[in-house]
Amino acid sequence: MMNEKLIFVTNDDSYASKGFKAAIEVARHFGRVIAVAPDTVQSGKSQAITICDTLRLKCISKSEDVEIYSLNGTPVDCVKFAFDYFLKGKKVDMTISGVNHGSNAAANLLYSGTMGAAIESAFYGVPSIGLSNIDHSADADFEASVEYGIRIAKRVIESDIRPICLNVNIPILPVEQIKGIKVCRQTKGFWRDEILERKDPNGESYYWLTGGFENHEPDAADSDEWALKEGYVAVVPVQVDLTSYSQLKAVADILE
Amino acid sequence: MMNEKLIFVTNDDSYASKGFKAAIEVARHFGRVIAVAPDTVQSGKSQAITICDTLRLKCISKSEDVEIYSLNGTPVDCVKFAFDYFLKGKKVDMTISGVNHGSNAAANLLYSGTMGAAIESAFYGVPSIGLSNIDHSADADFEASVEYGIRIAKRVIESDIRPICLNVNIPILPVEQIKGIKVCRQTKGFWRDEILERKDPNGESYYWLTGGFENHEPDAADSDEWALKEGYVAVVPVQVDLTSYSQLKAVADILE
Repeated sequence: MMNEKLIFVTNDDSYASKGFKAAIEVARHFGRVIAVAPDTVQSGKSQAITICDTLRLKCISKSEDVEIYSLNGTPVDCVKFAFDYFLKGKKVDMTISGVNHGSNAAANLLYSGTMGAAIESAFYGVPSIGLSNIDHSADADFEASVEYGIRIAKRVIESDIRPICLNVNIPILPVEQIKGIKVCRQTKGFWRDEILERKDPNGESYYWLTGGFENHEPDAADSDEWALKEGYVAVVPVQVDLTSYSQLKAVADILE
Repeated sequence: MMNEKLIFVTNDDSYASKGFKAAIEVARHFGRVIAVAPDTVQSGKSQAITICDTLRLKCISKSEDVEIYSLNGTPVDCVKFAFDYFLKGKKVDMTISGVNHGSNAAANLLYSGTMGAAIESAFYGVPSIGLSNIDHSADADFEASVEYGIRIAKRVIESDIRPICLNVNIPILPVEQIKGIKVCRQTKGFWRDEILERKDPNGESYYWLTGGFENHEPDAADSDEWALKEGYVAVVPVQVDLTSYSQLKAVADILE
């Protein structure tokens, strides 16, 4: 263990999830851990922040090496609480967000609270890794997630690529069957939703969002969905500048 | 009025906001309007979706040309309801999201519910314009927002740039003092937060997220913050692929 490191951990499935314990395990490999995670499930919260409500904080457990807090906010709120409150002025060596229960590949990246937190952390200049196990069941097996999480985090800490924010998705396979790591781009496609209508006991309608991902390029061998399907750990380097640089001139031509 | 068009309107300040009425006014210039907007303020909701809760829909008003619905969900939920429920299978010519009360320039783009909805709409292949008046007061003057909203929407409809998703911010100036439209990139910088602690009547702590934007490049003449400061309407073309292409090789070198 490299005891000198300070690692921040958060997620979007709450401090009580199995994936959160797996993320703590990854982080503990490198040093001291401060974790602030939502007190309830915050899946699909993207980079949402809490502006109009108050926040409550609770200490879950505290030892010399691991401090865990819960917050009644979003994953990004947890990052802000960590970096602008608990760790203000301290050098944080890395953020591990996750391990998410379920895929954050392709367009899921944009809805993901796990990745919202990783992107927010990258804003603060901290190398950030979002880890997602594409098995979304509550009792998913996180052995491969921990194994590859440590392997990737080690190389990121040792590298000089800064800023860095990685979207890492782990296939549902035993460690020995995973083919390795593939660095990819975000697959093109989107969620096609179905709005499921039901009646409440008073006969009034209510709705559930359901649906499935439409992959617009299932055969693209440089895409993250392809890599996962083929049995690789898929890693997408993520940027926080949404400017579509390739369109700047065309848009200026019609608007300026 | 080009009566043949079908325009979708949403926002993040709710159907009851002044900015929503301004967005309807922009959309009405082009044709028939279907609007689905949150029933309460959803500022800072980014691209969040509602996975774990049920949704309720309410018809606010319905005429031949304008239908307005409210939803107890996020801005992105509203988009999904529109495109996968009300307008399923129909060709929507444009989405107007806003007009937001407050700036969505620079990193605000990533937290913004207004822009979350615009990005979601672009996923569906619909040309999307997010409009934000940088005056966040409830009774802000939307004259310039409507004027420039119509001007920009007209040129986007007439152009062949597809996909297209624009982040448009309007300065706090009378129309005649605005210098014109500047197509820009997202300003580099982030929100530095302060966690404000207070005590509730029982003596327990609660917190508010506060803070301010740190502009890391105040003098960059191609950035949206600079354009707004100089009195221009700032337009950033937005992409939905977060892959950091420039880092693909470097990350593959350390991980693969």
